[in-house]
Formats: sequence, C-alpha cells, structure tokens
Amino acid sequence: MILAKLVLIRHGQSEWNLSNQFTGWVDVDLSEEGVKQAINAGKLIKKAGIEFDYAFTSVLTRAIKTLHYVLEYSDQLWIPEEKTWRLNERHYGALQGHNKAKAAEKYGEDQVHIWRRSYDVLPPLLDASDEGSAVHDRRYANLDPHIVPGGENLKVTLERVMPYWEDKIAPLLLDGKNVVIAAHGNSLRALSKYIENISDEDIMNLEMATGEPVVYDFDDKLNVTNKTKLD
Amino acid sequence: MILAKLVLIRHGQSEWNLSNQFTGWVDVDLSEEGVKQAINAGKLIKKAGIEFDYAFTSVLTRAIKTLHYVLEYSDQLWIPEEKTWRLNERHYGALQGHNKAKAAEKYGEDQVHIWRRSYDVLPPLLDASDEGSAVHDRRYANLDPHIVPGGENLKVTLERVMPYWEDKIAPLLLDGKNVVIAAHGNSLRALSKYIENISDEDIMNLEMATGEPVVYDFDDKLNVTNKTKLD
Repeated sequence: MILAKLVLIRHGQSEWNLSNQFTGWVDVDLSEEGVKQAINAGKLIKKAGIEFDYAFTSVLTRAIKTLHYVLEYSDQLWIPEEKTWRLNERHYGALQGHNKAKAAEKYGEDQVHIWRRSYDVLPPLLDASDEGSAVHDRRYANLDPHIVPGGENLKVTLERVMPYWEDKIAPLLLDGKNVVIAAHGNSLRALSKYIENISDEDIMNLEMATGEPVVYDFDDKLNVTNKTKLD
Repeated sequence: MILAKLVLIRHGQSEWNLSNQFTGWVDVDLSEEGVKQAINAGKLIKKAGIEFDYAFTSVLTRAIKTLHYVLEYSDQLWIPEEKTWRLNERHYGALQGHNKAKAAEKYGEDQVHIWRRSYDVLPPLLDASDEGSAVHDRRYANLDPHIVPGGENLKVTLERVMPYWEDKIAPLLLDGKNVVIAAHGNSLRALSKYIENISDEDIMNLEMATGEPVVYDFDDKLNVTNKTKLD
C-alpha cells in the first residue's frame, strides 16, 4: 500500500551550467531554458495528478524559482514551503566560479575528475577570509560560523542533508503527506543514495536530468515501493 | 530608535481587477500589468536597501506571486516565507465572480456601495453547498469547516487577521526582525486599521495602491515612528 509520495526535482539549467563553470553555493539564476524546464516539470506533475502537502527547497535562487514554477504550473502555489541551506548544492570550495575546462588545464583532467566524481575527496577549500565565502552572505548569518563549509564532497553533503530528512521530511511521509523537493544535482544525489541504499562507488554514476521529476512511493515503513520518472 | 520595519504590499493588478469582478477568495492570477507592478515593487525595495528577515502572504496565487517577484527583484528570494489563509482577501460571499456594474444594476448602487464600503455589513453569503464554497477547496482542508467563511465584512476580516499578527508578526518585530507582507486590499486595510488605530468610519477611505510598498518603522513598544510609501 502506498502511504506517501516524494518527488525530487533537480533545478532547471542555470546560467553557469551553460557557461560550464563550477557553481556550488554561488547564487546563479536559471537560464531561459532552465525556466522552460521548470515550467514543464510543473505541467508533468499536474498531468500526473500529484497533489503535494509540503514543499522544500534550498536557499539558492535557481532551486527556489524551480519550486515556484513547479507549484504554480501544477496549481498548488499555496502549498507550505520551507527553504533550507541543508538542501543546497554541494559546496565546490575554491573551484567555485572557475571554468571546468580551464580547471582541467590547470590541475590536470585526472585531478578535476577526482574532485568531481569521488565520493569522499574534498575540493580545494575556500577560506573564510575569501570574499566569496558563505560566512559573508546574510542568508547564512544564523548558521554557526564553524559549520559554514569551505568546500564539500558528496559524503559531507549527505551528512548535512540527513538531519533535514530525519527531522522534517521523513516525519511528513510517515504521516501520509506528499512532499516535493526542488534542489540540486548533488543534494538530491545524496538523498537518493540514502533512499535507494546506493553504494559509495555507484552513487557518482547516478545522473538526474534537470527538470525531470523523480517520484518515489513509500509504504508505512518508509520502504520504496516504486520509483518513476515523469517525462 | 527604530527597532524593526514592516512593509505591506498589496498584490499587483489581477485579471478580475481588469474585468471589474468581485474576487474575494477566488484564486485569480495577476494580469501582465500586475506582474510589472510586483517586479517594480521589488526594485523599489532594493533601491531603498530594505533587508527582510521574514515574509508572509496569503494562500491566494496573486499575493504569493507578488511576494515572489518582490523577493526576487530585491535579491532575497531565500527569505523564509509563510502562506496563511488569515491574510486572504476579504471573502465576498455570493458576490464573488459577479461583475460589479451588473451587481449594481441588480441590487441597486446604494446596496452595492454598502456591501463594498461599510465596516460591518456582511455581503450575501455563499452557502457551503455551493460549488464555489471554500469548504471544497483542498487548501482549506485543515481548517475547521465551521470557521470557513461564506462571506466577510472588514470587521470579520480584521478579527481573523489579528491572531496572526499577535502570534507571528508582532513577536518578530519585537525581536528586531524586518517583515514583509504581500496580501490584499482588505486584509492589509485591516492590519493598517489596527496599526494606525483608524476608526471604523475612516478605514474604508484608506486606499492602498497595487504594488506600492508601505513601510512602517516601529520602536521597541511597537509604536509606529514613521510611515512612508515607496514610489
């Protein structure tokens, strides 16, 4: 018996996806194509007849706007929503803002591949004194400065996503509520790793398409009974 | 000394403002002009340098979208937001959906003027059995059906706005937080009546322009020390 549905949506294409830059916590907007993808995701949700009870997103504009388009185009913009840094993209440390091809020239393709695809290797860290550090951003002002990251791998990303799953999302699903999360490639990969019990080795091969809703059905023990992609 | 700022923004022009219909709780979208007004309100907030800590809106699309444009165009879309039926427009009862000019022909101009402008006369009520009743709308499913209104005057609107002010908004202002509320002509009129201590007779003459932010400065006893309009 299906108790509740969880829908994960990776934000639509961003301006830096287009320009091939490491983004992480930099607050880049959706591209025009990204807006179209988000609107289309909303229409797919509507067509599938999925009604949400709660919505969650990160504190980054590209995910928030994706959520808003999804809710608007599925006629449920009034659903309660919560924005949290715990659903942010993986922090890409000192690589943030750098072009991926140029980083490969500078550090070597193998090294950049390791930073991008290993589960537990950290990227070069961004120092708190750097003007790009999240400690200078008002949206993280309520966060203990000691835990504002200077760079994350997927392992660390998973570790800071999980308390939110445990405290906020899982209780709603157990209460039979349908939940939508609009977030990022790596925060959603982290959630999927936990939900589907994917190994450290296999998780980096999991790709989520931008704007393609992934629907999990859960039973009353929070076991996945079905997984589908809407397209 | 200014402790905190409260900014009230009436949603931009809606499609039914244009077609001169009674709207109330009917979930009508913004017109193109209304979107422009909301974006402009965001730019005015940015120009004024006002940074919010919390955002509130109703559960009606035209107010929620106004809030989102305001936050996006003032570079603070990540601010926590809460949507509540208590900030909804005044429920216009059985008049909802009717053209205002045609209602004047049917009921007489004087009667329609009384329904629109008196503080405590109720409009003709919408029965719960009517398909347009809010009891059939999923967004009010968690509301005690006995308190879902079939029609409201400004007095009743004020009475259901006030608990939200008392429990949510006033505590934040007392804590020195800046708050923005994007809502409706009458729910904001109700709030203004309380904040500015306006009489039952005078309040219906208070007009709030769509998309024009009204900024209140409060001291630490929640007395208004200044009121300005951004334009």
